[in-house]
Amino acid sequence: MKKKEIRLRCWIDIDGVRFFGPGRAELLEYIETTGSISKAAKEMGMSYKKAWAMIDDINSRASKPYVILQKGGQKGGGAELTEPGKKAVASYKKLTTKLYNIIDKETELLKHL
Amino acid sequence: MKKKEIRLRCWIDIDGVRFFGPGRAELLEYIETTGSISKAAKEMGMSYKKAWAMIDDINSRASKPYVILQKGGQKGGGAELTEPGKKAVASYKKLTTKLYNIIDKETELLKHL
Repeated sequence: MKKKEIRLRCWIDIDGVRFFGPGRAELLEYIETTGSISKAAKEMGMSYKKAWAMIDDINSRASKPYVILQKGGQKGGGAELTEPGKKAVASYKKLTTKLYNIIDKETELLKHL
Repeated sequence: MKKKEIRLRCWIDIDGVRFFGPGRAELLEYIETTGSISKAAKEMGMSYKKAWAMIDDINSRASKPYVILQKGGQKGGGAELTEPGKKAVASYKKLTTKLYNIIDKETELLKHL
């Protein structure tokens, strides 16, 4: 029996350049739960440098920063999401949940492929 | 004013390998309207060879072929969609329309990014 699966990717572009998607949403969620960019990077199997570059890109292109760093500097202190950051993650998750709910109802489509 | 846009990609995997997505759906639609793989390929800005490889992959992995070739052989004759092919294209379009309808309602999300 073949495994047929509907796949989905949803992301947000700003001026045609990818701004926010599943990877960045996941990174921000890990920052929220761990309170640390380095721990969040580790959870993602990603280098600190790459995670930091993502955060820097988000913060500089969002209308307001999504992540703020605590005292202790870039590597020393903790990190947390701002209210706009939390809101962006929550809205993105809400949207993708809606989309996946649509897809989950499409089992008929898969049967006939 | 920055242009913020929610983007979406939806595709179908069979046994973890991409089987059907926006490009193949478009190719099949052009085959239906032009009655020819070579004309469809041209519309897509794609080589005949690549279009043919796509069709061959679809036909061999779908439960029934989606495209049949008319007399005159691979390059000579016309091509048309089978009923399962038409059904697959229609179902895929219906699904993606639903998904885009969800996205179109999410203008609030974009405002707050």
